[in-house]
Amino acid sequence: MKIAIAGYGNIGKGVEAAVTQAPDMEIAGVFTRRDPASLKTVTGATVYGYDQLADMKDDIDVVIICAGSATDLPWMTPELAASFNVIDSFDNHAKIPEHYANVDKAAKAAGKVGIISCGWDPGYFSLARIYAEAALPNGDSYTFWGRGVSQGHSDAIRRIEGVADARQYTVPVEAALDRVRAGEHPEFTAREMHLRDCYVVAEEGADKAAIEEAIKTMPNYFEPYDTTVTFVSQEELDKNHSGLPHGGSVLRSGRTGFDMEFNNTIEYTLNLDSNPFFTASILAAAARAAYRMNKEGQSGAKTLFDVPPAYLSTQSSEELLAHML
Amino acid sequence: MKIAIAGYGNIGKGVEAAVTQAPDMEIAGVFTRRDPASLKTVTGATVYGYDQLADMKDDIDVVIICAGSATDLPWMTPELAASFNVIDSFDNHAKIPEHYANVDKAAKAAGKVGIISCGWDPGYFSLARIYAEAALPNGDSYTFWGRGVSQGHSDAIRRIEGVADARQYTVPVEAALDRVRAGEHPEFTAREMHLRDCYVVAEEGADKAAIEEAIKTMPNYFEPYDTTVTFVSQEELDKNHSGLPHGGSVLRSGRTGFDMEFNNTIEYTLNLDSNPFFTASILAAAARAAYRMNKEGQSGAKTLFDVPPAYLSTQSSEELLAHML
Repeated sequence: MKIAIAGYGNIGKGVEAAVTQAPDMEIAGVFTRRDPASLKTVTGATVYGYDQLADMKDDIDVVIICAGSATDLPWMTPELAASFNVIDSFDNHAKIPEHYANVDKAAKAAGKVGIISCGWDPGYFSLARIYAEAALPNGDSYTFWGRGVSQGHSDAIRRIEGVADARQYTVPVEAALDRVRAGEHPEFTAREMHLRDCYVVAEEGADKAAIEEAIKTMPNYFEPYDTTVTFVSQEELDKNHSGLPHGGSVLRSGRTGFDMEFNNTIEYTLNLDSNPFFTASILAAAARAAYRMNKEGQSGAKTLFDVPPAYLSTQSSEELLAHML
Repeated sequence: MKIAIAGYGNIGKGVEAAVTQAPDMEIAGVFTRRDPASLKTVTGATVYGYDQLADMKDDIDVVIICAGSATDLPWMTPELAASFNVIDSFDNHAKIPEHYANVDKAAKAAGKVGIISCGWDPGYFSLARIYAEAALPNGDSYTFWGRGVSQGHSDAIRRIEGVADARQYTVPVEAALDRVRAGEHPEFTAREMHLRDCYVVAEEGADKAAIEEAIKTMPNYFEPYDTTVTFVSQEELDKNHSGLPHGGSVLRSGRTGFDMEFNNTIEYTLNLDSNPFFTASILAAAARAAYRMNKEGQSGAKTLFDVPPAYLSTQSSEELLAHML
């Protein structure tokens, strides 16, 4: 499979690593809207301009689109689905139906497959939810995120006057997890499920008390949560908080039995040193599935809900039956 | 969907409960090789003789086969796949390829779908393994079972002279789980992963020391493990150990990054008050998928690896996109 990478941020680099390591894939090129001469890839993969994608249709089996959900993917995924099998990690939950419809229209017209929202949430966490609910229709599902870096919350702190830099960790409340594990079916407030732990570099002479107050009272982002603020130096932030770890847990607590007498819990937990590199690994596996589904004659928008899991694997049907089932 | 239940043990009863509770299913009948007049179903579902299945082809969409893997499913699933869409929970891992081939031949010839091995291991644990390996191809997978009742090990104890009754719990070693969670990649012995905890009722006058020795030295079943034996009265066993709880964890520890610099763990855990009723819930969801795949024109043997997860769900594509992704 010849894989094009459109966009070369953290996720694009992660896809470069994953595709390079996959036995059945090679990189057809990295495509960027920046000046291609300004980019050097880690593996030496060739960099092209985004506009050159159109000339390379015969050399590309799948384009993995590694661009932002807010402003890029809404137009880029449909545009590329008109010519290629495509994969994205669109993660704006509220706009998924609209994005799906746009990709579906373009991909169906082109006879291509576009699998959207292939990360871990949406993505693998969504799979954990759908399987758990299918097995335990009588129950409640809970999603906890973290401990991990939220880029959106870190950015929100950086916009406060007097803040030079910041990193925010979303932290699940362990007591809440334990209640669900114990078979309770609580209705949690936001505050009961997650904490927000902030590391902030103040500009010289800035009013730290005012910064802390501005963070803790910020509507939607921090006000609904218990928030801790720790001021650190830029060196400390760079040394101890430069990674992008993340993870979380999907839990379902549900009952079976004629009288709902049996309690059951399902828990799916991720602990990731690198959020973007894990997302990229899923994107690469989804590219394998898109290629296979399109070879079979399928077209249109898909999500991981539509993908038979065997299509994500490098193993043959025989190997899967003998060793994985 | 009209669902027939073939076999009425614990799993058959679990399917009866799950199908009765599903909004899109009804029970076409319970089919037994015993005298139908001797059986009374919990919900009042009609009981027929196994041989009457053949006369009811037009009244049945899917047959869920709730019989034993050792001697029944190897012939029964292929036999019924020659006339019906079928589901089973065949769990003899070593013989899955052979069983698959037999079901495939019969189901393909009949234009029907047969989904085999739809429990939690094989089944949902297999799904946890395949998704985890697809996302983290560089890593190691571990499956821990328990704390839960192993019927095979309980039966092995009951065959010892002087034993009136017994119940054996398989227990994962928490320290081993913690090593995998911490990102280690250990090669465990059997003893390092699981303990065996036995509750035994001795016959009057039996030599308890000899029974304990016979259990602890039993090859394959107990000798490779640290085993504890507790003698209890029949009343105690019935009161405290009559349930069939089970569960366990699938873990994968794997690395991403250009130099494998990022560690990641995925953990999937089940805690089940009733092993057979949870298995039955998965069987019912798989019946939904078999019905849909067959309606689309698919035929032959399948496993959950071949089933798009959306097919297991009662929710529409629109609902799944809007609420589950």
